[in-house]
Amino acid sequence: MTADPTIEDIRTASERIRSFIHCTPVLTCEALNRMSGASLFFKCENFQKAGVFKIRGAANAVFSLREEDVSNGVATHSSGNHAAALALAAHWRGTRAFVVMPRTAPGVKKEAVAGYGAEIVFCEPTLRSREETLGEVVARTGAVVVHPYNDHRVICGQGTAALELCQEVSELDVVMTPVGGGGLVSGTAIVVSSLSPRTEVVAAEPERADDAYRSLQAGRILPSENPDTIADGLLTSLGDLTFPIIQRHVRNIVTVSEESIVAGMRCVWERMKVVIEPSAAVPVGALLGNRELFAGKRVGVILSGGNADLTNLPWVR
Amino acid sequence: MTADPTIEDIRTASERIRSFIHCTPVLTCEALNRMSGASLFFKCENFQKAGVFKIRGAANAVFSLREEDVSNGVATHSSGNHAAALALAAHWRGTRAFVVMPRTAPGVKKEAVAGYGAEIVFCEPTLRSREETLGEVVARTGAVVVHPYNDHRVICGQGTAALELCQEVSELDVVMTPVGGGGLVSGTAIVVSSLSPRTEVVAAEPERADDAYRSLQAGRILPSENPDTIADGLLTSLGDLTFPIIQRHVRNIVTVSEESIVAGMRCVWERMKVVIEPSAAVPVGALLGNRELFAGKRVGVILSGGNADLTNLPWVR
Repeated sequence: MTADPTIEDIRTASERIRSFIHCTPVLTCEALNRMSGASLFFKCENFQKAGVFKIRGAANAVFSLREEDVSNGVATHSSGNHAAALALAAHWRGTRAFVVMPRTAPGVKKEAVAGYGAEIVFCEPTLRSREETLGEVVARTGAVVVHPYNDHRVICGQGTAALELCQEVSELDVVMTPVGGGGLVSGTAIVVSSLSPRTEVVAAEPERADDAYRSLQAGRILPSENPDTIADGLLTSLGDLTFPIIQRHVRNIVTVSEESIVAGMRCVWERMKVVIEPSAAVPVGALLGNRELFAGKRVGVILSGGNADLTNLPWVR
Repeated sequence: MTADPTIEDIRTASERIRSFIHCTPVLTCEALNRMSGASLFFKCENFQKAGVFKIRGAANAVFSLREEDVSNGVATHSSGNHAAALALAAHWRGTRAFVVMPRTAPGVKKEAVAGYGAEIVFCEPTLRSREETLGEVVARTGAVVVHPYNDHRVICGQGTAALELCQEVSELDVVMTPVGGGGLVSGTAIVVSSLSPRTEVVAAEPERADDAYRSLQAGRILPSENPDTIADGLLTSLGDLTFPIIQRHVRNIVTVSEESIVAGMRCVWERMKVVIEPSAAVPVGALLGNRELFAGKRVGVILSGGNADLTNLPWVR
């Protein structure tokens, strides 16, 4: 197994992608400070290109490839934000993207991926069909697969958000991210443990997709089985590259109920006037529901994305 | 009649209120640039204290008063953003606020005003009842009335948003605001005509509350009668202080259909990931519906506020 990425790898990633992505703003909100008892610094990756931090990892992976390796395009299976991000990164690199998506994916996600110029290959909505179809696509096209999180280039790209946050805000006691497959929290943990060793990295995870919490307790990867949460970006389970980084550097994983996720999401929309998707609301729910853990602390929060469905709001039911 | 306010008055207002308000960020959005054909610079007053630019005018008015004049409090009649802003400004000044509101006002607005510590006095939902009740409140308390827009101190406060915008973004061809009673556009017009005379000031107004458009055409104030628009911050008609400033400095008033207002609002939520209220979407609707007027230009847009009802979205019906 290759060694874990280092802060130098993440600095290199940051240089590699900087002309393509936004250095997103850090916002504060007095109302949320009052409600949490903490001083919160929100790194707004919901304002990022393609509406999500995933473009950082996708762009770093795509621009890390040699010209001869990328000439046949890149490929992935995903029905979500990674697919759109990879499509956009491939467009920037001037190569093709092949995205395997279940036929049942929402029309708006198909349109987003197609809108960035990717070729969509439909499959049945099972993991087996996704993997088989991706295998066929790679055999046919010679495209390089870019995994959504279990890839050091992707982990390094995702870490660049925390790098910007630490450069802008000093003396943080805690940095929080959501955790799904673990790409974002791994990259964040490498940055924070290197630049500010006294700062705790805390991950927030839906109760109903709590594989990272259980895996950390057990000391081995325990995947989620049929997870079902509104935080649709966090349905994936840790990978063998992200798990050891999380084991080493992540102090705590806070699990969050569906009700708290929705309450956190609404609170950010209503008080900060900022649109975040349910996955991004998981750390907010963790903060509002666990005052005792965070009161009096300076907490950086990565608001991971803003691709919410505006026609189906979870508090209007 | 006193002379119109000057850029110096607005600079003074800016100094007076600067420690209380946010210097709001200016955001850009590639998707909206593509859709409009223009380069857009959004001054995000939806992130302002109390969620709206109105706190600028209210704070300037309240802090312009002498100690002996403010000791009995301030008063207004309003069911909307000005009421909340005045309540907050009075709280900062350490005095009381009396707000006359119709009994029929939405609960969320009553709560916001009460939450900032104002005393609410209910009246019937007619202009006559509002004015009579306000008269009674003033007679009883000795509070000073702060009008929502037809007041030079308020106009100067509202102009400070454009002052910040012009300091941050140079070479604007156009600055756009919505127009209701005219406080925001008047203050903006004074700033822009002084600091950048070649820049056009354009106001955007709902078709269904088009008194400013008609008044400018006619050369005299023609109030709206029973206006009915989703842009509930723009139901008021021009005042005798705002009209002459608009006559002198505003190049064009673009009227916008209800459908275009909703489309503009949705577009900002969806693409910029930012929550704006319907009134703030009126300039966006004007931009998207009139490409020929703005294509190729650098346009500053004041996103006036973000106090939208998150449980009743106009595109979910």
